[in-house]
Amino acid sequence: MREVYIAGVGSTPFGKHSDTSIENLAVTAVVQALLESTVERDEVGALYLGNFISGPLNGKEILAGLVADRIGLPPIPCTKVEGACASGGIAFRHAYLAVASGQTDIAIAVGVETMTHASTKQTTVALNCAMDNENDGPSGLTFPGLFGLAWRSHEERYGTSRSHVSAVVRKNKSNGLKNPLAQMGAILSEQEIAASLPICDPILLFDCCPTSDGAAAVVLVSKEVGKRIAQHLKHPLVEVLASVQTRGSPNIGGHQDLVSFNANVTAAAQAYEKARVNPQNIDLVELHDCFSIAEIIDSEDLGLVPRGQGGYWAIEGRTALDGDIAINPSGGLLAKGHPVGATGIGQIYEVTLQLRHQHSNQVQQARLGMTHNLGGAGVACTVTILRGNM
Amino acid sequence: MREVYIAGVGSTPFGKHSDTSIENLAVTAVVQALLESTVERDEVGALYLGNFISGPLNGKEILAGLVADRIGLPPIPCTKVEGACASGGIAFRHAYLAVASGQTDIAIAVGVETMTHASTKQTTVALNCAMDNENDGPSGLTFPGLFGLAWRSHEERYGTSRSHVSAVVRKNKSNGLKNPLAQMGAILSEQEIAASLPICDPILLFDCCPTSDGAAAVVLVSKEVGKRIAQHLKHPLVEVLASVQTRGSPNIGGHQDLVSFNANVTAAAQAYEKARVNPQNIDLVELHDCFSIAEIIDSEDLGLVPRGQGGYWAIEGRTALDGDIAINPSGGLLAKGHPVGATGIGQIYEVTLQLRHQHSNQVQQARLGMTHNLGGAGVACTVTILRGNM
Repeated sequence: MREVYIAGVGSTPFGKHSDTSIENLAVTAVVQALLESTVERDEVGALYLGNFISGPLNGKEILAGLVADRIGLPPIPCTKVEGACASGGIAFRHAYLAVASGQTDIAIAVGVETMTHASTKQTTVALNCAMDNENDGPSGLTFPGLFGLAWRSHEERYGTSRSHVSAVVRKNKSNGLKNPLAQMGAILSEQEIAASLPICDPILLFDCCPTSDGAAAVVLVSKEVGKRIAQHLKHPLVEVLASVQTRGSPNIGGHQDLVSFNANVTAAAQAYEKARVNPQNIDLVELHDCFSIAEIIDSEDLGLVPRGQGGYWAIEGRTALDGDIAINPSGGLLAKGHPVGATGIGQIYEVTLQLRHQHSNQVQQARLGMTHNLGGAGVACTVTILRGNM
Repeated sequence: MREVYIAGVGSTPFGKHSDTSIENLAVTAVVQALLESTVERDEVGALYLGNFISGPLNGKEILAGLVADRIGLPPIPCTKVEGACASGGIAFRHAYLAVASGQTDIAIAVGVETMTHASTKQTTVALNCAMDNENDGPSGLTFPGLFGLAWRSHEERYGTSRSHVSAVVRKNKSNGLKNPLAQMGAILSEQEIAASLPICDPILLFDCCPTSDGAAAVVLVSKEVGKRIAQHLKHPLVEVLASVQTRGSPNIGGHQDLVSFNANVTAAAQAYEKARVNPQNIDLVELHDCFSIAEIIDSEDLGLVPRGQGGYWAIEGRTALDGDIAINPSGGLLAKGHPVGATGIGQIYEVTLQLRHQHSNQVQQARLGMTHNLGGAGVACTVTILRGNM
């Protein structure tokens, strides 16, 4: 496999975009990434688009071809990939593989979703397409319910309390305040969080990521192309050290318990091995905090925080911008937002800016960054390790 | 890129499967392909699943992970890919690439769709997810309308008549009679076809593929694995000489005219070049006859029949089992059925059986076979060239 570099990234703000179509959102992100990369459209050899529920919510599929058409790309392979909330990460991995395996020297990955136009019921039904409905459907659980169960298990096992989880909410909402792309941001007190609307015990409104529209894109290039364009770029290239995708159980019964997701653990192990780095080397991570408790679980599964210590590290500030490991400096899904298919590529966008030292919430001396995208009840996971070349 | 071989195929019959779930259909096909291939489940390194509209019609996504879970595959990357009616072909290509590029020695491609449980309106709305709704939506056209326009253009340009098109219907419905997996088959007279229900002038009911449920799967292996398992197999390996994916316009206005689809022409040219064969070398093809007129257009776009001659060749029997080029010996989409996401893999299944000389409609001395899968209004196309090793 060849070396692969990120030459350009683009993103719309995450939030409400009721004034435009889903394909136009994606086009905006791709055009921005292409401009930044300085490569020409007719040089692009493959496009992968991550999207989860445009079929049910927009009556639109073939988004990969639609977006390529609007941009005026050549008659190249354009593929939509889906793995629930990990769809964006899967799109990135496939664009990476297209370059790494020598199929093309330049590939685009784009993720997009629009959700805010739909009713809460429509959105809930659509999001439940990510469940194993044959096995978990009869329980009536939706995703807040699943992560509520995970919270109770983590509490029972490790003593993780409302205060621990609130520390995650406070950090991420605060990080969101300074991220220009974030859907929301706030300085919140523990009391304000505890007073927010109950959603599914013990999960409160502020423990949940918002419903979002948005798109993000990345242009990946071979080493050869990277060398050619380096002089034209306004920023350094970022190297992809590892891009990994794994599978876990799609249903609750398939997990040994809910304090960990196998797909996370497997993906992290493979990613560290491929990148030849240790968890201790990672300066920052954008991980999949669809609910506040998920950040705690994921941080432990990725080996960034000792098992059971996720809540403790959060409350002690060890996962803050200047902590031992900066977790979700973007605000994460909780504050930046979660336009499902876009999230995985949005994370790449954020980490790329960090490794170029261009971020509004810059982690000092950031050199190694990670992204983590998790789909469904742990059915699909992607982990990426990126290195800055400052 | 490494050599890639088909070690096993599996398929459910195409038709009505109201007694089982979409994931179970896919599992049935995969298990059959695995058994035939003799490879163990824990040796599989990647799974790609082609599906188009399970979200809107079943409320189920993450099908790749669901199917892998049911089969008990390892924690490998499992990805759903979508490109409308070409979703199956795209899944095949990605499993091929996974082996060809050395990511894994064994990969599975599976395609699946269930549609017959839904109402005609639900199905029509879902199928229209493959349209460019921003551009072609206002016309009110659905796919019969699009191919009706194509028919009129072809008629105007080349004199293609009702009789020419009926010859395609007669051949494919007749071929379907002897295919045990086909949804339907019949010996039809021109008069019976002409008397069938009008759908969208000039298209009649018998010009349309049926609404179908079904699944098909294939196990792809590296040369090394092929050598290892060859002695255990009850059939010869089939070699993948080319697996190509291209993009065309998603909307009507983007085509110069409707007597040809650019994505077809581009894909065929690339496939012949990769496989180092000429159209004249191809013994049989399973191509995308979603409507009878589409077979005529596709056969010309693929260079198998001279431009404008598709209808003439059909009426002269030159596309029959014993003709110059056997087109759709399976009965094609018109008779075998069109469970959208399964179709592209179903074509691979059919051609594989032909190249093993195991088909119920065997093309004599078949050695080189082709499959062709087209999505939307020509937005995505895959072409595969396979070689038998008799």
